[in-house]
Amino acid sequence: MAKLIDKTMYANIINNVSKCIQLTEEEQHLFTSILKVQHVPAKTKLLQEGEVCQFEGYIQKGCIRIYYVNENGFEVTVTFAVEDWWVSDIASFHEQKASRLFIETLEDTEMYILSPETKERLLQKVPKFERVFRMLVQRNLVTFQNRLINTISQKAADRYLEFIKIYPTIPQRVAQYYIASYLGVSAEFVSTIRKRLSAK
Amino acid sequence: MAKLIDKTMYANIINNVSKCIQLTEEEQHLFTSILKVQHVPAKTKLLQEGEVCQFEGYIQKGCIRIYYVNENGFEVTVTFAVEDWWVSDIASFHEQKASRLFIETLEDTEMYILSPETKERLLQKVPKFERVFRMLVQRNLVTFQNRLINTISQKAADRYLEFIKIYPTIPQRVAQYYIASYLGVSAEFVSTIRKRLSAK
Repeated sequence: MAKLIDKTMYANIINNVSKCIQLTEEEQHLFTSILKVQHVPAKTKLLQEGEVCQFEGYIQKGCIRIYYVNENGFEVTVTFAVEDWWVSDIASFHEQKASRLFIETLEDTEMYILSPETKERLLQKVPKFERVFRMLVQRNLVTFQNRLINTISQKAADRYLEFIKIYPTIPQRVAQYYIASYLGVSAEFVSTIRKRLSAK
Repeated sequence: MAKLIDKTMYANIINNVSKCIQLTEEEQHLFTSILKVQHVPAKTKLLQEGEVCQFEGYIQKGCIRIYYVNENGFEVTVTFAVEDWWVSDIASFHEQKASRLFIETLEDTEMYILSPETKERLLQKVPKFERVFRMLVQRNLVTFQNRLINTISQKAADRYLEFIKIYPTIPQRVAQYYIASYLGVSAEFVSTIRKRLSAK
């Protein structure tokens, strides 16, 4: 008899995937049986620059930051990820090349993990997952594209407004320092922007 | 009797796609019959900021530039695309939202075009194309990610070296001005870098 799926445990990720494709009971079972559950304490580095990223993970609970260190030694936050987001360095994961990024947990985090091997196995067995990952990487691309354009062309206050639209819960969850490193301004300046906006 | 495919005409695009998936004769026929051939003269805008991108195109011949205009009115080149590249504003194309980008031909260009409707039809009829477009968008993401990191952290001369690795034919094909707008430096500075490099 097939092992029963813990439906409560996987309800969120099944729901996430079901926005793109319809899964039979059997496919759901196959999918969740391939996932590896990982509990990671806050302030843990899941990936460091120079390493090859071996995971693509769905965040069941928690908060993660992706950043790189620029030539002056400053951390630049590329993206935050919270519940119901997927996180990976797709470039490194798929080309099995050294990453230029760091990925770290900001809170205690629970993730469901695919490795390059288990992802490929999933795609072999249930090819319609190609669509899920195409959609994911598309959304990722949109974020990066906007990020590139905004970084160069928007004023810091507008970038902050854009930021809280994408990440409504982040300002309550992480240190101002991290938001500053995303916006490319000082922590003091983030504080000034927030005061100015709340006064409006 | 099914219409014969002009194999010479579509050899490159079939070859491009066959790096990701294997197509039967029938699937090749279906694919190429869905494509729309488009001849575009040099210096034509295929997309303007504010418009919704209605095409994803494979470049059979020619050279295309994607750029945006920043708040100071300067053009910033995001990417170039030449033979065997695909080009689109995937963000705008898939979410049917106004684009922030301009796409223009720099040379007379021949493209094979998918619209949102024909792409979806192709994916419905030959679902394994999901894999092709996932790979494409992944490569795109890698480019954007590197672009974002390099823009902030690399020196202009290193960016130029990176640039000619990605685009070996571009310096011979387009005005220095465009390369400058990609690197975020003045045209004079590109000229200086090139002289310095050729003197080595």
